[in-house]
Amino acid sequence: MVEFGLVDEIIVPSCIIGLLAALAQFLIIRKISLDPEKQGLSTSLTSGEAPEKLVPEIYAKIMDGAIQFLKVEYAICTLFCLAFSLVIYFLVSWGTHSSTQGGLTAGAFLTGAFTSMLCGFLGMMVATYSNARTTLACAKKGYTEGFNTAFRGGSVMGYALCSLGVLVLWILLTVYRKVYPEANDWEMLFDCAAGYGLGGSTVAMFGRVGGGIYTKAADVGADLCGKVVAGLDEDDPNNPATIADNVGDNVGDIAGMGADLFGSFAESTCAALVIAAAAVEHSNNTLSAAGWDAMLFPVSISAAGIVICILCGFVATNVAPVKVEADIERVLKVQMVLTALLMLPVIYYLAVLLLPEHFRLEGVRLTEDGSQAKIHGTPFKAFICATMGCVGGLIIGLVTEYFTSHSFIPTRELASACKFGTAVNIIQGLALGYKSCIIPVFVLSSAIFVSFQLCDLYGIALAALGMLATLSCGLTIDGFGPISDNAGGIAEMALFNPEVRRRTDALDAAGNTTAAIGKGFAIGSAALVSLALYGAFVIRLRVKTGVNILEPTTFAFLIIGCMIPYWFAALTMKSVGKAAGEMVAEVKRQFSKVDSKGKTLLTGSTELKPDSKTCIQISTQASIREMVAPACLVILSPLAAGTFFGVQAVFGLLTGSLGSSVQLAISMSNSGGAWDNCKKYIKNGFSEDVELRYTKNPQTEEEKKAAPKAKEAHDAAVQGDTVGDPFKDTSGPALNIVMKLQAIVSLVFAAYFAAINRGHGLIFVQ
Amino acid sequence: MVEFGLVDEIIVPSCIIGLLAALAQFLIIRKISLDPEKQGLSTSLTSGEAPEKLVPEIYAKIMDGAIQFLKVEYAICTLFCLAFSLVIYFLVSWGTHSSTQGGLTAGAFLTGAFTSMLCGFLGMMVATYSNARTTLACAKKGYTEGFNTAFRGGSVMGYALCSLGVLVLWILLTVYRKVYPEANDWEMLFDCAAGYGLGGSTVAMFGRVGGGIYTKAADVGADLCGKVVAGLDEDDPNNPATIADNVGDNVGDIAGMGADLFGSFAESTCAALVIAAAAVEHSNNTLSAAGWDAMLFPVSISAAGIVICILCGFVATNVAPVKVEADIERVLKVQMVLTALLMLPVIYYLAVLLLPEHFRLEGVRLTEDGSQAKIHGTPFKAFICATMGCVGGLIIGLVTEYFTSHSFIPTRELASACKFGTAVNIIQGLALGYKSCIIPVFVLSSAIFVSFQLCDLYGIALAALGMLATLSCGLTIDGFGPISDNAGGIAEMALFNPEVRRRTDALDAAGNTTAAIGKGFAIGSAALVSLALYGAFVIRLRVKTGVNILEPTTFAFLIIGCMIPYWFAALTMKSVGKAAGEMVAEVKRQFSKVDSKGKTLLTGSTELKPDSKTCIQISTQASIREMVAPACLVILSPLAAGTFFGVQAVFGLLTGSLGSSVQLAISMSNSGGAWDNCKKYIKNGFSEDVELRYTKNPQTEEEKKAAPKAKEAHDAAVQGDTVGDPFKDTSGPALNIVMKLQAIVSLVFAAYFAAINRGHGLIFVQ
Repeated sequence: MVEFGLVDEIIVPSCIIGLLAALAQFLIIRKISLDPEKQGLSTSLTSGEAPEKLVPEIYAKIMDGAIQFLKVEYAICTLFCLAFSLVIYFLVSWGTHSSTQGGLTAGAFLTGAFTSMLCGFLGMMVATYSNARTTLACAKKGYTEGFNTAFRGGSVMGYALCSLGVLVLWILLTVYRKVYPEANDWEMLFDCAAGYGLGGSTVAMFGRVGGGIYTKAADVGADLCGKVVAGLDEDDPNNPATIADNVGDNVGDIAGMGADLFGSFAESTCAALVIAAAAVEHSNNTLSAAGWDAMLFPVSISAAGIVICILCGFVATNVAPVKVEADIERVLKVQMVLTALLMLPVIYYLAVLLLPEHFRLEGVRLTEDGSQAKIHGTPFKAFICATMGCVGGLIIGLVTEYFTSHSFIPTRELASACKFGTAVNIIQGLALGYKSCIIPVFVLSSAIFVSFQLCDLYGIALAALGMLATLSCGLTIDGFGPISDNAGGIAEMALFNPEVRRRTDALDAAGNTTAAIGKGFAIGSAALVSLALYGAFVIRLRVKTGVNILEPTTFAFLIIGCMIPYWFAALTMKSVGKAAGEMVAEVKRQFSKVDSKGKTLLTGSTELKPDSKTCIQISTQASIREMVAPACLVILSPLAAGTFFGVQAVFGLLTGSLGSSVQLAISMSNSGGAWDNCKKYIKNGFSEDVELRYTKNPQTEEEKKAAPKAKEAHDAAVQGDTVGDPFKDTSGPALNIVMKLQAIVSLVFAAYFAAINRGHGLIFVQ
Repeated sequence: MVEFGLVDEIIVPSCIIGLLAALAQFLIIRKISLDPEKQGLSTSLTSGEAPEKLVPEIYAKIMDGAIQFLKVEYAICTLFCLAFSLVIYFLVSWGTHSSTQGGLTAGAFLTGAFTSMLCGFLGMMVATYSNARTTLACAKKGYTEGFNTAFRGGSVMGYALCSLGVLVLWILLTVYRKVYPEANDWEMLFDCAAGYGLGGSTVAMFGRVGGGIYTKAADVGADLCGKVVAGLDEDDPNNPATIADNVGDNVGDIAGMGADLFGSFAESTCAALVIAAAAVEHSNNTLSAAGWDAMLFPVSISAAGIVICILCGFVATNVAPVKVEADIERVLKVQMVLTALLMLPVIYYLAVLLLPEHFRLEGVRLTEDGSQAKIHGTPFKAFICATMGCVGGLIIGLVTEYFTSHSFIPTRELASACKFGTAVNIIQGLALGYKSCIIPVFVLSSAIFVSFQLCDLYGIALAALGMLATLSCGLTIDGFGPISDNAGGIAEMALFNPEVRRRTDALDAAGNTTAAIGKGFAIGSAALVSLALYGAFVIRLRVKTGVNILEPTTFAFLIIGCMIPYWFAALTMKSVGKAAGEMVAEVKRQFSKVDSKGKTLLTGSTELKPDSKTCIQISTQASIREMVAPACLVILSPLAAGTFFGVQAVFGLLTGSLGSSVQLAISMSNSGGAWDNCKKYIKNGFSEDVELRYTKNPQTEEEKKAAPKAKEAHDAAVQGDTVGDPFKDTSGPALNIVMKLQAIVSLVFAAYFAAINRGHGLIFVQ
């Protein structure tokens, strides 16, 4: 009979608190009614064309579009996952000579996959639910309510996703523990549980790539046709691609990002558990010997993080709420720093409470005599490892902000480069992205160095968990951005007074900056997670000679691994280009249609309506069609390498892919972010330099004189932003998943690889 | 007393033949006189404004500019090399406890550096000497003579550089052999000789970066101001940056590329020699025991390659010369394929002749019991390794052509993307570059896998040498491009009849395509060379446990290593942007100057002359100023890593940098090449699609209708080309040197690293 212990008493209540908090936030949002009768808008904030009646209509369109996409995407995902679970079942059963283990791994995989889909679906529904309400809150009550509504929308997703993720994993582990009650069997238990991470990550891959292609096909298509060709504003209701663009924000940034980070969390937990459970020769002092509480210490960090984030959330919405525009960014940043700092003592307390005073771990590094090192861990060491991740993530986030926000020099320099035209903007933007890798990589490598030294790969896994401990807060802020973005779109399309748009824009701008920080976290944690998974894979294989990179197979696959992210980026970027082309063709077709009075959509036809449904269909079909190839590349490459060339090929592949993905992901995300904010900087006229201050209606003599140059700079900035779109929202963030997914596929199939490579110096302990 | 053996009788005569052939080609070019009296031009080919008088003037300006730049560059280089030779002397003396070894290493370093500078200088002088003569040959005698002149100009550089490189190395080795006459000491001898490779590579770094910044600052500056702002044609004589642009072709593509490939050759030879000489425990069957002939087998391949290339050169100029425009590309490609195929039997013959039937080598990979493998080599295995390189290089070259030439689908698709504007062109161009990594990386990894399996790292070094065996031919073709490009510039500036320009353009276009092939070779060989050097470094350190990548220090530095190429690219691209900005400002200043009659340069002033000298100075100063930081980053990073964190840090750094540089170099070069040719495709109206056929004076009704769209596509293509400029001519190719230079720095300082890391399981055999 399984008994519940101390750790269960931490995990379960935390998750329940998280779910209740999410429910509470949702109920508060629900109070804002979309019913025109009850809205009670002050008419001064509308252009007098009854926007309150338009809002429900637009809201319904976005909601429909999002659901339509998710339905198709999840149908494909489900099919793929079912098929892949069979592959897992057979290969793992064969590798471990145990159909129980194959079945449990496949079961964990499906559980992870469906939990991820559920979280993505919930997050997206709530986000879509909140966007129109944010517009109304901004219109009715100003910044405080507007901010709070968007923030609450984000936090429903943040709290619910984290709580569900932890709770389902806990239930899974508790059930599996009945199958493997003895501490000696836990190595097998956690091998099976690793399927949970694989499931989460597989869905994340489809979500990121599918969502990323969807959103950027719509965005690039809408921009190219609307802004550049027809001279329309962003989110102009006459542009039929606008709705698809707004749907895209939800499916890409909410469902995609949520699934990505859920995957990271699930995988880092699994990596920590597998490493902790790996049997240590000649030692009774292991974590599994210390009991279930010690084993589940990593899960307790994630659980406690939820409560911390909820407490800090009150600071944003109640204690020190947003009052004026300038508060928004500060409040969001305080959230990030505060949660990270508060986590530190909590982690320390949990380590002392749950971990034994001394424990031994199976290491992956070699001692001087060539045998694998046995690591000596303590709670304090474990705490330092998690701290490296937690603080490292914060630094990476702030550096990302420095390089992408237009409050700082790099993006302002980029804006100046726009004066010399598009080409110089692109050259300098790419250089900015490359340069922005330097500090994050040094931070990451310091975190790796320290935690690797202290607790070997268990330390790396803890660092990853430390970085993800404040995930609820990160997801809240990540959700905040697209909700505000959508709120702005609705304000524009529903013909609200420009003041409302100004307010939602202020929310959106702050959201953009903090979203960049979130991307920094996502990339940093992905790198640590992949390394931890890679290490868990090597530990499970018990490779006596370590991973000697100067082996023919390993080195040959190292450079193939380095190439995989480029291949992946080529596929996804080409897909965006292709899908955007289709969107442009459709929008042009609609613009050129003439009604009975000889008028078109753009010349004020009253008969023609922009057909947003067709645009949504184009984006949906394109993203579904194009997401399969990149996903298969990532999932199948380690399987193929291991099957045909042995595990040394997999080692090379993982090493190369990890090293190369990190750089490409950081540089792409930051180039894209900087181009986006550079455009905003010029468009909103923030610059001191009159030649960089774009206004549609120049007023002063000076402005009139500079207007053509400002227009030129603005156009160059728009082109840069368009190039940056697939960088920052499709290829860049999806590279996170490339490295994680390849590593967890390898880990789950470790027994299979060992079985087909028997006699090559590998021992896989059953 | 040293006696000369069989191998000396192969090497020395081959080099002398090479030098004589270079002299012969030079004498043939010299027959074309620049003296206006003797030119005897048919006036039908001129616009009647006495171009024959303008040619010597323009020629002198380009020559002056090039010499002025090289003077300054080589002065800095010399200072740096002298200072660095002191560092080498002290650190190597300290590490080996032998000031002889320190002195000889520093001596070899200086010899390599000065040989490289001499080669660069000679190549550039000959190229500049040939360009005006190519214009005249095209004008006077048509394609056959024009092609032959440019080809001969390139071959003077190709033959002379290879012969000098091999001969000086041979002299150096022969002299050093007097110091270390015993086979047992050759390990030390070749350690010292590795300084030769370091010298070549250090100068190459300055040459590539300095030249690359020079040429692209001028090119981008001239394009931005001339073409985009003032609507001038390329090479318009009124554009004061035009001369600097033409100088840039010489200093970047000739001196820079020449130094790069000279470095590759010197380093791969040194790597092969060091590995061959590494003492093998418990075996008398080593290469050094077999004698000097066996040791110098790698050098004999390079020497024999020179003769083969000279023989094949006759095919191009005499046996099957160019008759019509369409022949040009075919003739150049035949050269590449023919030399590669002819090399194969020669390599086989040399291997059988010089190598013992069986030999043992110190391996870097580990056996199953964890000890370092002893490799068993045969002449046939050595031949296969070199063949992998030779054929692999050819395949990489042809794939590069496929992705960058507008005769094939990828660049044509890119041209279609230009219809959707600049942003789509950039997105698709970047995706094309990423995609173009796939096959070359598979080819490289196959070459690595096979040659590593057969002869361990000696095999890798031989593969690199096999790829570089046809270097003379590669350099000839590489030189051909810029000479033709300059010839076109001179034709334009000297106001020749458009027919002359058409002929030089045809040469230039073929040269561009084959230059892309050359870049493929350069990158592929750089990857193999770096791996061989890295391996030589590990072998010399006798690291018992191999390079275990899952060590804290190693992995932490692996991701730093992966980041170095990005840092480097950021520095160089920012430099180009900055320098181009200065150039634009200067050109604008000159364009806005008004003479006494109120006219400017652009409105036909007869008083004002374009001031090309100031432009040349700007490019020179900018490149000299900006080349130091990237060079120091590359040279100092392995030194710093090894000094402060030990050799395991260096292992990580080299692994990461190698894997990451290859991808970035290939993708940057190919994106840039494709954008360039995409622009040419649209500009020259090669497309079937009328919307992609840009003409200044549309004739047919259809053309007139499509003209605005064609203009739009053309402008998008020009922007793409400008972005591609620093990609393909500054950052991309310089990344070759990043990986090579870091590896050879590590090798030369191996003893120093071992000395400061004593007690960390390293044994360095003195």
